[in-house]
Amino acid sequence: MPPFLHPIEDPADPRIEAYLDIRERDLKGRGGRFVVEGEVVLQTALKLGRFAIESILIGENRVVPLADLLAGVPTSIPIYVATRAVLDRIAGFPMHRGILAIGLRGEPASPESLLAGMPENALVVGLSGIANHDNIGGIFRNCAAFGVDGVLIDAASCDPLYRKAIRVSAGATLVTPFAQGGDIAMLCDALLAHGFEVLATSPAGRETLHDVAPRKRQAVLFGAEGPGLPGGILSRLRSLRLDMRGGFDSLNVATTSGIVLHHLAR
Amino acid sequence: MPPFLHPIEDPADPRIEAYLDIRERDLKGRGGRFVVEGEVVLQTALKLGRFAIESILIGENRVVPLADLLAGVPTSIPIYVATRAVLDRIAGFPMHRGILAIGLRGEPASPESLLAGMPENALVVGLSGIANHDNIGGIFRNCAAFGVDGVLIDAASCDPLYRKAIRVSAGATLVTPFAQGGDIAMLCDALLAHGFEVLATSPAGRETLHDVAPRKRQAVLFGAEGPGLPGGILSRLRSLRLDMRGGFDSLNVATTSGIVLHHLAR
Repeated sequence: MPPFLHPIEDPADPRIEAYLDIRERDLKGRGGRFVVEGEVVLQTALKLGRFAIESILIGENRVVPLADLLAGVPTSIPIYVATRAVLDRIAGFPMHRGILAIGLRGEPASPESLLAGMPENALVVGLSGIANHDNIGGIFRNCAAFGVDGVLIDAASCDPLYRKAIRVSAGATLVTPFAQGGDIAMLCDALLAHGFEVLATSPAGRETLHDVAPRKRQAVLFGAEGPGLPGGILSRLRSLRLDMRGGFDSLNVATTSGIVLHHLAR
Repeated sequence: MPPFLHPIEDPADPRIEAYLDIRERDLKGRGGRFVVEGEVVLQTALKLGRFAIESILIGENRVVPLADLLAGVPTSIPIYVATRAVLDRIAGFPMHRGILAIGLRGEPASPESLLAGMPENALVVGLSGIANHDNIGGIFRNCAAFGVDGVLIDAASCDPLYRKAIRVSAGATLVTPFAQGGDIAMLCDALLAHGFEVLATSPAGRETLHDVAPRKRQAVLFGAEGPGLPGGILSRLRSLRLDMRGGFDSLNVATTSGIVLHHLAR
């Protein structure tokens, strides 16, 4: 069935208000909404995402190339087609990606409620101070690829539903369940209380990844490159490192998460 | 010993000509030179790098905070201290990183000469169409961390000594030997001729990573996300995939390289 499209000619049309001034709102927030960019991420949001999509906005010139995607959009989601005048109001933004959507955050999960819903066999990731959108996006992409059941994120880490984090994650932050709040020590306590073996990653870890076998309920914590996890956390937990060769012992935290999760997800 | 510093007050001073208009030159090239940015990367370039550093440029306000690094710079490398007038001429560039250096590319290695110098036990990476600076930087960072002996890069991939690639690699492109040129089929032939087992990575690989054991001489090829490696290459070689769970089967190529190299470097 061909999609039903709503042409928008007036940039002040209230139906597309959420799309205007995209970059400015990255900073001041967008009140319970988030932005999805591009065909691949939107496909993921529609097929695997846990959040409601409120509407879709597409440039006139992209209607034909993206016809297949549009045909699969549920009729309950309005698809707005933007003219030049509207595109100009989302200025500075790469609308050449051709398609945007607005999603609704809904009620955020608490760490406690996320853990209460975990299955008997579960792999959980805990993040401390991951303030870089590329890194949090990259970590979530790995979590989704290796079937992580949930991500607990401390308050010092950035928002997984920030526009760039969603894009870098290839939509994974819309797929893998997460809860954000508190500090990593609190999150660690909650994991232990729910019967998880909690592993801490650190370049100074006492064991290597190869020493660690997958368990029924397992969680692995990652800290920011540089500061890493707090010392108080490292001393309480099994800590693991990746063996590197030569004098260059530096790995990106998202890459580290990929290596560790590939190992534990077997 | 305190370092000997050369103050530069005139933006037209020929000694710092190579630092001006940094971004413009990213596009038009800089004739046999490359730019190193930031304290960490410069430390790596000085300690582990294979390239000569021609000079260093530092903002006045960074001399004290970076005193330790400066004290370790060989006296043969001039250290220029930039005043405000000079900083303004590298406009648009984040000189808040505080320190820049110019390196010399020297004579580029050919794939043949790189392979001729390989030890009996060697792990080599081959790259096809990696045109994104974040990805080539990320791959090199993993290569350096896991002790890869050399990287062969096709002509369609980007330059590992491009400014952003060096930065993202945390300096690894200055450390791990590489040679660039030709297409991936030629590079594959050269590897086979030098006695390498050549593995191709692909989401449709016939074996999983766990099926592959490290060998004396081993090479692994990575293609760009999306197009991947050419079909003609995949059909000739052992091809390997990473097992993923759920419907989200998407990994970043740099992360993939980290997982594969961590496995093969054992």
